[in-house]
Amino acid sequence: MKNEDVMNIAKKRGFLWSSFEIYSGVAGFFDYGPLGAILKNKIMNKWRDYYLVGEGYYEIESPTIMPEEALKASGHVDHFNDPMTECKECLEVFRADHVIKDVTGEDVEGLENQELTEILSKEQIRCPRCEGHLTHVWSYNLMFQTLIGAKGKKSGYMRPETAQGIFITFKRLLRFNRGKLPFGIVQLGKAYRNEISPRQGVIRLREFTQAEAEIFVDPKNKGHPRFREIESQVLTLYPADIQEKDGEPIKVTAQEAVRKGIVSSEILTHQLCLANKFIKELGIPFEVIRFRQHLKTEMAHYAIDCWDVEIHTDRYGWIEVIGIADRADFDLKSHSEYSKEDLRVFMEYDQATTIKKLVVKPDMKKFGPLFKGNAPKISAVLKKTDPESIKNAFNKENIYNMEIEGENYQLTPDLLSFEESQETVRGEKIYPHVIEPSYGIDRITYSVLLHCFQQDDDKNILHLPADIAPIAVNVFPLVNKDELVLVSEHIRDDLRAEGMIAELDTSGTIGRRYARSDEIGTPFAVTVDHQTLEDKTVTIRERDSQKQVRLPVSKIPKTINGLINKKIKFSEFEAI
Amino acid sequence: MKNEDVMNIAKKRGFLWSSFEIYSGVAGFFDYGPLGAILKNKIMNKWRDYYLVGEGYYEIESPTIMPEEALKASGHVDHFNDPMTECKECLEVFRADHVIKDVTGEDVEGLENQELTEILSKEQIRCPRCEGHLTHVWSYNLMFQTLIGAKGKKSGYMRPETAQGIFITFKRLLRFNRGKLPFGIVQLGKAYRNEISPRQGVIRLREFTQAEAEIFVDPKNKGHPRFREIESQVLTLYPADIQEKDGEPIKVTAQEAVRKGIVSSEILTHQLCLANKFIKELGIPFEVIRFRQHLKTEMAHYAIDCWDVEIHTDRYGWIEVIGIADRADFDLKSHSEYSKEDLRVFMEYDQATTIKKLVVKPDMKKFGPLFKGNAPKISAVLKKTDPESIKNAFNKENIYNMEIEGENYQLTPDLLSFEESQETVRGEKIYPHVIEPSYGIDRITYSVLLHCFQQDDDKNILHLPADIAPIAVNVFPLVNKDELVLVSEHIRDDLRAEGMIAELDTSGTIGRRYARSDEIGTPFAVTVDHQTLEDKTVTIRERDSQKQVRLPVSKIPKTINGLINKKIKFSEFEAI
Repeated sequence: MKNEDVMNIAKKRGFLWSSFEIYSGVAGFFDYGPLGAILKNKIMNKWRDYYLVGEGYYEIESPTIMPEEALKASGHVDHFNDPMTECKECLEVFRADHVIKDVTGEDVEGLENQELTEILSKEQIRCPRCEGHLTHVWSYNLMFQTLIGAKGKKSGYMRPETAQGIFITFKRLLRFNRGKLPFGIVQLGKAYRNEISPRQGVIRLREFTQAEAEIFVDPKNKGHPRFREIESQVLTLYPADIQEKDGEPIKVTAQEAVRKGIVSSEILTHQLCLANKFIKELGIPFEVIRFRQHLKTEMAHYAIDCWDVEIHTDRYGWIEVIGIADRADFDLKSHSEYSKEDLRVFMEYDQATTIKKLVVKPDMKKFGPLFKGNAPKISAVLKKTDPESIKNAFNKENIYNMEIEGENYQLTPDLLSFEESQETVRGEKIYPHVIEPSYGIDRITYSVLLHCFQQDDDKNILHLPADIAPIAVNVFPLVNKDELVLVSEHIRDDLRAEGMIAELDTSGTIGRRYARSDEIGTPFAVTVDHQTLEDKTVTIRERDSQKQVRLPVSKIPKTINGLINKKIKFSEFEAI
Repeated sequence: MKNEDVMNIAKKRGFLWSSFEIYSGVAGFFDYGPLGAILKNKIMNKWRDYYLVGEGYYEIESPTIMPEEALKASGHVDHFNDPMTECKECLEVFRADHVIKDVTGEDVEGLENQELTEILSKEQIRCPRCEGHLTHVWSYNLMFQTLIGAKGKKSGYMRPETAQGIFITFKRLLRFNRGKLPFGIVQLGKAYRNEISPRQGVIRLREFTQAEAEIFVDPKNKGHPRFREIESQVLTLYPADIQEKDGEPIKVTAQEAVRKGIVSSEILTHQLCLANKFIKELGIPFEVIRFRQHLKTEMAHYAIDCWDVEIHTDRYGWIEVIGIADRADFDLKSHSEYSKEDLRVFMEYDQATTIKKLVVKPDMKKFGPLFKGNAPKISAVLKKTDPESIKNAFNKENIYNMEIEGENYQLTPDLLSFEESQETVRGEKIYPHVIEPSYGIDRITYSVLLHCFQQDDDKNILHLPADIAPIAVNVFPLVNKDELVLVSEHIRDDLRAEGMIAELDTSGTIGRRYARSDEIGTPFAVTVDHQTLEDKTVTIRERDSQKQVRLPVSKIPKTINGLINKKIKFSEFEAI
């Protein structure tokens, strides 16, 4: 179905709508309505099933407001910018690179402001709205800024991503994992981006929900212990070199992707496979999913490899819904430098090794008389000095000059001796590398609605997988009579007692009620009819096949539960 | 256990810690660590079980950033303030009412700034830090402010409560509920309060999580259909009149509370019972829970009745964890006025009624010649005029003066006639009343930790109810041998396949591993020993009783699942 039709139904039926409608709305903000919120929560809980229960990672929750220091370290204060230009006549603002692309057709993303200003001037590009003159290009920071506290006015920002909360608290997380690599930490929550003028509905939000995992690994070991379980999975990959040659995406197995070096590591490929499986289990067809590798020019300088999971949409083309990156040691190193905290991990060697080391030893018998009270000071500095540099100085000039607290001391070879000593080294401190899958939950939810909605015989059917459908089951008394309604209410209550969202609907013909139920994606409907009063059986109707089976009332809750959790198949029953 | 001990363990073991530690921290922000995040999520999901599955309400999700107009309507822009004063010497800022209370002992909360300034001056109160002079008192708004968009700089705030997102979108929600009352909508999410200088740990956060329900009811019907199910529940109530007399809280049943008029309605009492049950099921003992009614002086002018659910703590005394209020029609009325949208509900009468109405009819035969072209205009205005006011004018002065577009027209009784007509009225438009339970999830989580931690024989045991424990089960190979570890890994994987968080621990003595498991509240431990290799049985140890039972490996996942969901009791097994 088309974007507009889907968004119309989504709004009408309580999935999604623009926020603050009664106050004329504010671009870039959306509400999840009663059905949308359940759908989104179910998608997030499925994600938790994958990452917490399946992968064994742990979740944390850190604040959405962050102090400036932390975002200075992450690079967001200085680099999370869009290039802006303003019309001198109508005072409207624009993204400079977008204005240039619209006129010249050339992709100028990533150019410096000065270069963009020059292009605007050389190409004589005017305001797209009123043809007025455009100003020079400046950097507009995309973070929402605020002030923390009444006193001192400490500068803070709404976090641009959930990941930073994990890096900042890495030391505690490492301790929780008893100092060992690898381990994974996830965070699900709001992130913010103060877009200049968002115009793409739920695709470009100023406030959005991320699910991110930061997997901390030994840089020397990027394998995955359970890679064999997924190595035969087929992925649609669009590697950078093929994009550069304007080629078509290729279908390869995970195993091939690693073997041929298309994806840089097993663990990164494993993430691609998880994402692929996750998206498909949400009901999005394989044909509209592809993995696009970042081009060298779009990839951050520190990153080793990056892939966007893209889903095709009629309105916006291919949209990125997940980013999967090997970020190397950038984040922890940067926070270490800014915070002066050592965020390295001590990696014990399999076997302790012994290294030989040259040690310089002052002859204290000569030192004392020669340097008097300064002798201990000089010998202390000597201990910290690389013996090789002293040796070199002796070789060149037969003398070594030291400056301590502004005083100069001359050492001659007779004052020192060099000895070789052995030292046992049990391991070394390293910065772990970070593998980061980053899921955009709103775009995924939108894609699910877009691709699960279908028009069959003029009816809108939302073919959601049963386990993410907002309402598990609708209960219909065939006619609106007290005795049928009473039985229906009991069935609904029994279903709710099993933890399922079940609703009763008595209004309109049974056909209209089925149609309404199909349109909001309810996978099953239970109908109570006159036979129910006689033999205590009801019919269950499956949304997708539109087939019905007759079962005893007493079996309904367990059966529906089993159907939703895929422990029972509807086709195993005999249809009536 | 004491607050400090609990917070120390919570920090050490990965439940909770102050945020941004490596950047010296920022007061009023906390992280939930790997165990804390699961605990908090489980508490929130249990809340959803109560309100979504149990009560049949629906959840929505609205943005945390809100435009100024919406918060102007809610009263937060003008009234969400604390009174501030600054020291002219050391420039430190203080809450004026707190400074006064510290010196005089008198509670001056709610007084006007002018009054507070006068008290400061009259009592010669000085800066608590440096004895300097304090400034006049001004209002400090507690919302975090930000700017939305690059252009125009639209003012926005981080929402002070989740409730407003529900009121704003009421029209869509009413439509979702097919125009009928009552219905309930909930929201769980972040809310913000830029405290002047928070110093009470997790009790006073600048960013916190709320779970709020807004229940829209017919003002004429505040009953609850399932009140009978809970009417015998006993609550510890502390009504306003008893507080005023310095009396003690009373224990009454829900039924009594309604019958004696202690709580204003059945539906409000039902909320008190839900809260009571919820808190107790989280493992907090009945003795430390009480319901304190707001005093007339602390209740908002529009509210009908308000109760705080309070939990006793060693460090902070009684703290409010939930607020339950009957807010009457304040919120919807206010948003209607500000937004100019009609947020009323059409309430159909059980039976349509006929009302008699006086109608004024102009005699057009006289009107035409007299008023010429103005005749239609005058007769149109007449139709909208209350006939009684015309009658009154005729009675007094025998003339009725009309002004239309600056022109004056005089009507005499001979130009008009009055007729009685009948009109059928099917219903009326009303503002629903709002019942609002508002749960502070962070304070509840803290209270759970505080009251579930116990020191038994020098060991710290976290007696969390099994269904909210972060880790469901720990698997221990009795000794760290390959064959036992392998079996243990399989058991852990089988448990995870059932959707439970299961962990393997091989380090240290079995006693130390049990102790570690108890300290983080893991309700069950499975131990794999040499007998396992022979007869495929393992032991399950229950945290609280420290008893063990022996069961076949194949039954472990289902058994643990049943124990956690309280479908099986551990005491039913025969202990070994």
